[in-house]
Amino acid sequence: MTDGLSDDYLGSPDVAACFGAVASCAHMLAFEGALAEVQAELALIPQAAAETIVACAGTLRPDLARLREATVAASNPAIPLVAALTAAVAESDKGAARYVHWGATSQDVMDSALMLAARTAIEHLDARLRRLEHGLAALADAHRATPMVARTLGQQAGPTTFGLKVAGWLNGLVAAHERLNALYARLPLQCGGASGTLAAFGDDAAAVAELLAVRLGLAPSAPWHTERGIVRELAAAFADVCAAAGKPATDIVLAAQNEIGELAEAAAPGRGGSSAMPHKRNPVAAIAVVACARRAPGALATVYACFDHWHERAAGAWHAEAPALAELATLAGGALAQLERALDGLEIDTAAMRRHLEADLGLGMSEAVSMALAPALGRAAAQALVRQAVSRAREQQRPLGDVLAGMDSVGEHLDGAALARALDPLAYLGASARFIDQALAGAAVLAGAAPPQASPGAAACSTSATPAGPPAAEPHLEEEDDG
Amino acid sequence: MTDGLSDDYLGSPDVAACFGAVASCAHMLAFEGALAEVQAELALIPQAAAETIVACAGTLRPDLARLREATVAASNPAIPLVAALTAAVAESDKGAARYVHWGATSQDVMDSALMLAARTAIEHLDARLRRLEHGLAALADAHRATPMVARTLGQQAGPTTFGLKVAGWLNGLVAAHERLNALYARLPLQCGGASGTLAAFGDDAAAVAELLAVRLGLAPSAPWHTERGIVRELAAAFADVCAAAGKPATDIVLAAQNEIGELAEAAAPGRGGSSAMPHKRNPVAAIAVVACARRAPGALATVYACFDHWHERAAGAWHAEAPALAELATLAGGALAQLERALDGLEIDTAAMRRHLEADLGLGMSEAVSMALAPALGRAAAQALVRQAVSRAREQQRPLGDVLAGMDSVGEHLDGAALARALDPLAYLGASARFIDQALAGAAVLAGAAPPQASPGAAACSTSATPAGPPAAEPHLEEEDDG
Amino acid sequence: MTDGLSDDYLGSPDVAACFGAVASCAHMLAFEGALAEVQAELALIPQAAAETIVACAGTLRPDLARLREATVAASNPAIPLVAALTAAVAESDKGAARYVHWGATSQDVMDSALMLAARTAIEHLDARLRRLEHGLAALADAHRATPMVARTLGQQAGPTTFGLKVAGWLNGLVAAHERLNALYARLPLQCGGASGTLAAFGDDAAAVAELLAVRLGLAPSAPWHTERGIVRELAAAFADVCAAAGKPATDIVLAAQNEIGELAEAAAPGRGGSSAMPHKRNPVAAIAVVACARRAPGALATVYACFDHWHERAAGAWHAEAPALAELATLAGGALAQLERALDGLEIDTAAMRRHLEADLGLGMSEAVSMALAPALGRAAAQALVRQAVSRAREQQRPLGDVLAGMDSVGEHLDGAALARALDPLAYLGASARFIDQALAGAAVLAGAAPPQASPGAAACSTSATPAGPPAAEPHLEEEDDG
Amino acid sequence: MTDGLSDDYLGSPDVAACFGAVASCAHMLAFEGALAEVQAELALIPQAAAETIVACAGTLRPDLARLREATVAASNPAIPLVAALTAAVAESDKGAARYVHWGATSQDVMDSALMLAARTAIEHLDARLRRLEHGLAALADAHRATPMVARTLGQQAGPTTFGLKVAGWLNGLVAAHERLNALYARLPLQCGGASGTLAAFGDDAAAVAELLAVRLGLAPSAPWHTERGIVRELAAAFADVCAAAGKPATDIVLAAQNEIGELAEAAAPGRGGSSAMPHKRNPVAAIAVVACARRAPGALATVYACFDHWHERAAGAWHAEAPALAELATLAGGALAQLERALDGLEIDTAAMRRHLEADLGLGMSEAVSMALAPALGRAAAQALVRQAVSRAREQQRPLGDVLAGMDSVGEHLDGAALARALDPLAYLGASARFIDQALAGAAVLAGAAPPQASPGAAACSTSATPAGPPAAEPHLEEEDDG
Repeated sequence: MTDGLSDDYLGSPDVAACFGAVASCAHMLAFEGALAEVQAELALIPQAAAETIVACAGTLRPDLARLREATVAASNPAIPLVAALTAAVAESDKGAARYVHWGATSQDVMDSALMLAARTAIEHLDARLRRLEHGLAALADAHRATPMVARTLGQQAGPTTFGLKVAGWLNGLVAAHERLNALYARLPLQCGGASGTLAAFGDDAAAVAELLAVRLGLAPSAPWHTERGIVRELAAAFADVCAAAGKPATDIVLAAQNEIGELAEAAAPGRGGSSAMPHKRNPVAAIAVVACARRAPGALATVYACFDHWHERAAGAWHAEAPALAELATLAGGALAQLERALDGLEIDTAAMRRHLEADLGLGMSEAVSMALAPALGRAAAQALVRQAVSRAREQQRPLGDVLAGMDSVGEHLDGAALARALDPLAYLGASARFIDQALAGAAVLAGAAPPQASPGAAACSTSATPAGPPAAEPHLEEEDDG
Repeated sequence: MTDGLSDDYLGSPDVAACFGAVASCAHMLAFEGALAEVQAELALIPQAAAETIVACAGTLRPDLARLREATVAASNPAIPLVAALTAAVAESDKGAARYVHWGATSQDVMDSALMLAARTAIEHLDARLRRLEHGLAALADAHRATPMVARTLGQQAGPTTFGLKVAGWLNGLVAAHERLNALYARLPLQCGGASGTLAAFGDDAAAVAELLAVRLGLAPSAPWHTERGIVRELAAAFADVCAAAGKPATDIVLAAQNEIGELAEAAAPGRGGSSAMPHKRNPVAAIAVVACARRAPGALATVYACFDHWHERAAGAWHAEAPALAELATLAGGALAQLERALDGLEIDTAAMRRHLEADLGLGMSEAVSMALAPALGRAAAQALVRQAVSRAREQQRPLGDVLAGMDSVGEHLDGAALARALDPLAYLGASARFIDQALAGAAVLAGAAPPQASPGAAACSTSATPAGPPAAEPHLEEEDDG
Repeated sequence: MTDGLSDDYLGSPDVAACFGAVASCAHMLAFEGALAEVQAELALIPQAAAETIVACAGTLRPDLARLREATVAASNPAIPLVAALTAAVAESDKGAARYVHWGATSQDVMDSALMLAARTAIEHLDARLRRLEHGLAALADAHRATPMVARTLGQQAGPTTFGLKVAGWLNGLVAAHERLNALYARLPLQCGGASGTLAAFGDDAAAVAELLAVRLGLAPSAPWHTERGIVRELAAAFADVCAAAGKPATDIVLAAQNEIGELAEAAAPGRGGSSAMPHKRNPVAAIAVVACARRAPGALATVYACFDHWHERAAGAWHAEAPALAELATLAGGALAQLERALDGLEIDTAAMRRHLEADLGLGMSEAVSMALAPALGRAAAQALVRQAVSRAREQQRPLGDVLAGMDSVGEHLDGAALARALDPLAYLGASARFIDQALAGAAVLAGAAPPQASPGAAACSTSATPAGPPAAEPHLEEEDDG
Repeated sequence: MTDGLSDDYLGSPDVAACFGAVASCAHMLAFEGALAEVQAELALIPQAAAETIVACAGTLRPDLARLREATVAASNPAIPLVAALTAAVAESDKGAARYVHWGATSQDVMDSALMLAARTAIEHLDARLRRLEHGLAALADAHRATPMVARTLGQQAGPTTFGLKVAGWLNGLVAAHERLNALYARLPLQCGGASGTLAAFGDDAAAVAELLAVRLGLAPSAPWHTERGIVRELAAAFADVCAAAGKPATDIVLAAQNEIGELAEAAAPGRGGSSAMPHKRNPVAAIAVVACARRAPGALATVYACFDHWHERAAGAWHAEAPALAELATLAGGALAQLERALDGLEIDTAAMRRHLEADLGLGMSEAVSMALAPALGRAAAQALVRQAVSRAREQQRPLGDVLAGMDSVGEHLDGAALARALDPLAYLGASARFIDQALAGAAVLAGAAPPQASPGAAACSTSATPAGPPAAEPHLEEEDDG
């Protein structure tokens, strides 16, 4: 749903593939296979039938074009896919075909498949977040003593360090990462049957649902056909990743402005050029991150607007939700991929950072001086005095330090050494080192935790869910092979 | 960006194709060809070179997979496409290659291509809207005397007709249609060059832009690289189509509830069934319309949130806009396609409509009776009297008419005939016939207007913009053929 | 920002008041008072000065009209409020005035005040959620055996119980409630000083921030001036409450349609009437819930679109966030208040529920019969047979049970008793009782947990933050008293 | 719905007042008065009764607190307001009371009142837009030859003029202004009665609606109770104003960055300061504009999400729409008010503009040089040559002009004079003067058109609709007086 050419630049083909036609079929077939296994285990259906169903579900490669067409008539893809599976099973064993999709309903298959897709998407995002956090932690540490000017409301404020700025980026990503990973283990099985009661499973209803959840590596849950909290939480978590990635990207685009020139994306032939201007070097990866982050809020609103799932299955709200969720995951993947690209080889001009701190007549140290004067004068009087010095510095275009040194009312309270100290950015960094340490510690905790990984039983299904063929790197071909 | 299987059910492959890879390349190449022609006309470049460029632009079928890849590096598809065109021209005539994309910048190509895509999308939507309005006008006319109960806040109110309900649907679509078509002739050429001044064209700058607009069938315009009013207007117009289609779909889903059963979508084998429940007949086309309409507001918000195009070309806002616009057009296409399907063969149970009007003890005529009593009693007293009758009818479970007939305080003011008239729904339809006539007249005006059609010169470009090969009906294959 | 008359109907004056002018001033003054106390404790400022500041912060009642006006000039309310506090302190003790707002910056005060506002909002919402969950749990329990028809895609499906439907509502609210309460203890202090380094506090920077957090009852945190994860999480949690409340409200509005008539809001004089129709009884409280839930997604999108906080303080993104957050909290409050009203005295027509289950020729039991036949015939063949019976029932307008009883192909597999059992809704409820038990257990856990409550130290500040005067019930007056 | 203190900074009290309680009552009473007049004219009700109703509607000042409370019970403010009017009329003339609100329904009153509110809002916005456009036109004209560097994707591109940049701002506002004003004359009366048929008016239904529209200065229209195109169009038009104002504000914030320093908002005591940093001068008005523009998309999405007005009156969608529309109008008002403030006294540092054009080694002229070389070398070869020069300039940190002058391959095609011309920004401005002229012409057309103004008859109602008392400047007091 774009120009068809920028998807890899502004999205994430590997994450998109988690929700694509091939993966969707694999996830739905994994559900059907696991359902048969569980039902055989509980003696609800014959073991032999289950084996045939599992085998067929594992090997069926449905004709995607025909499936798309049949989806229009049926109004969802589960109905024609189940029909295709039933036909395949019947070819092997006519008797077994009767047990396909036994007691389940389309929404069970589709919502559970959506959770399997979300699971693989989270795995992709987790891997990228780990790499990013590793890199940012090292960057924050390396630049903990690289002074630069803080900027508030777009204006130069007082001194900070590049390390602290990066630590902020890291904090943002770590928080989004934690929130995302916390959902991984909570992704629920949907299993309610036609009316949400699991009536078709009789007395074994609860057992079927619980065993099926275990087998698919999903969390057991009451049916949530019309209670969509998990979908909203996932949507918010994906959107959060976009937002957290969008913050460093925004800072990079700002810092790459020629007049600031503190950061630049790595140069490479053909990268960030212009079709008209030979000298351009655009922060194109950071710009792509920003573009992803800008698209997330609308998709998030779509998901939250679908609160009104009528009765026991929604008439529209359900249908609008899944595309928005897939879009959010894909945007999160794209944001992270491009942020990695923006940071890889990022050029950091520490001299420019230092220069801006001293520029504008050294006015950025005005708060430091007013705090140095405040114990003697009080905050308000100290600020008034410094404001007077600032005006004079501007009028006369002289550095603030010179002006202050020449003011008796300053000299009364600060001697030369004290004034010099008050004007030294590196002496006015407060708790920044500590804040960096905290950020590194937070990232380390997350890095030490095991990555989200499907359980062994579920892993099998997860493998079958991901097509064996060409992986993420060639997503377009993959769809075509099946087309 | 969904399950990859429901795109045809919840979207519109033909409208999506207007913005897809094949069409995007065609539109961009049309721009480059027309630019060369215009520049030759103004003697800015040699006529022979222009002819070669036009020829190559008309026949080039770039390798889409490679183009997608190069788009990541370049950060937009125009750069690699221009490179491919330059290479192709060079093969024919090395000297001509120097004149490719002369003085233009990527945004000129891409934004103008976006307008060409919007143009073909509007043509598709116009055709569907015409068919729908034609059908709805006939339906409104046919049912101008089919009484049914109006429902306000979900509750039965007084009498109306099915024809008037359909006239309301028609009014909504006609208004959205007019708004959309009004944009057709205003779709502007974007042509500003690297810095928005067209400096590279020298003194001929204005002439180039004007001739180019004519040739592409777009409106001449000052550069709008960072003034995005037209993109917002298009987005709002597409979203309006979704909303206008969503209203009748909502009414159909509501009226198809079993307990109401006034409308039902046409039955067809495999349509609207359930994977679990053999008796279901779901209004699946109307549901798809609703799903489209629900996704539009988020995409619209994305476009409006991209107001902050920095300086002379945005760093992210521009990039996020186009996918959202394409999504909106596609949703509009999907909404209309499914609305056509919902209306095609719609079953209208006029007996059920009449039954509901009489049901609930005939309370739906309470306003009519109170208005009949009001001239004598005043509005407030009449309402109080009728409210008393309503309570009694409910308590005793007797029809309102019987209760009223037995009340002296009613009989004083209304004799039997007058009361019967007050209780006759067909006698209490006010201006509904007139409102239907107005709706039909509004639709007739629009139907009589020429459909939006690219001008002859532009038509040529529009033809070349649409790939000669397999048309809308087989969009998936088409992409694959080029993949 | 509405008609100025519907705020109490469509919003929540008490939650709105948490973010209103009076409370905002109280929260900001609480910050300034606590800051002085902490700084005195660390010997950064004199104890006597701190005492004066605390006293003045506790008693200052600023002129709100003047404050509003000064906010325009200053661009935020903290600057003029600090000025007013400084003036008030100076009147008591000229020397102490110098220590007001020592080393803090406007964003510290405002963001921390926003968290205090969110805290009181959560307390309000928690209380309402507890009452609602208590009521819903009782309702679910009472109706665990009240059969009704489940409805999917707006169409009658198979049997369920009203208790299970209510249990679903309860699950939705409990999940949103848990998510909301989990944030309560995590609401962070914002304390970064002018440049986010806390440089003005020198070596005591970390100690100031930690003690201040404790005193205000907020969580200690690295500065989050431009890492807005917590604002997004709060926004999503408030929006989730709206969505979770919107689901039962949607079901009530649907079930209150005259043709369904299973639920009705309590009747009361003047409630749910029409200015034109004496017989109307609109589900007006549920409608208000729906209206609140519909407004949340847009405000949520606003918050997520504010991801791009530039550098160390945003130039616009920060300013747009807070109004949207306050709106979301207020909508959550309104949604819950009106849901309470909708449920209070809700009329439940169990006879109508039973009637609909049997209506439409008993087709709602078709899945049950096909499951009863499936062990013998296989799922597909059983469904085909039942579909045939359904067709015949519809054609002949005979109950499904009669038709089935007359079909030999059914009789072969199900004798009379077995068929009767297959047609009994109460025998086809699967795990619904278990699902209800789980929902009750989940609600009981949450009910047993201590309600979110500010810590003793913080309670003091929370008390001072809530104006002593007229509480929630008279919010309009309250503002006027100060106006 | 914010901190209650920033409304005047981030919103627009005068536009908000158009939708506030006092104005809403006035608008609704204007409807009731006009309805009675029209009905008397048509002899539907006695002339004397109409006169009493009109008189009472003109003087009634309802107790707003009581009205708010009654609105909760009734679910809309029209019901209690009509009751209050009926009571007031009854006091004068008991018989006349029966004719109050004759045949109308709440939605007629409320939707028509909303259109009257929108009308006054448009009048406010039009006046501000005229002033802004007047100022911007003068600014564009004055700076048509002020060279500055264009910036694309945040990077310096080639030369442009400040006048052209301002002309772009002007174009954006003019387009939004035209779109807004075009709606003024189309604002429709809503008049459908209880069921949308106007049945209560009998044969005079159409006449009542048409005369009423004329009297209120609204456009006659079929009932649009559930066809909400006009609400969407208004919402989009208000959002467009926000977006169009947000563009110049964004540029101002960017250009005010210290490192760029091309623009600065006027300095004033207390304006744009910091509570911590004495030297700050923040572009606070432009920031407020941006904040308004950021909040519009979410509110717009809310309006579009309310497409699903059920049947003949929505159960929630209608209720959620109006607050969002009022918010959008208020944000538009705030955006324009703050943009005026940002531009009033804007400091323009033309020296800084010139400096940036020459900075970075003069690389901004690279496109100009490559275009000068292209006729001889072809575009691709010329770009390659210039790219080589750019690299060399960067390596050696020498101005591009110097490097080019030393390259034989350049000298072959461009002699010294030609090279100097190619490097002169003022000689490379293309059609910028013409684009400025076009923008001025567009603005002049709009300035020459009559401002939107209620018709004489309607003016009377408009006057009574705006409270006679304290106008926009003191909106807070106004509400309190009535409270």
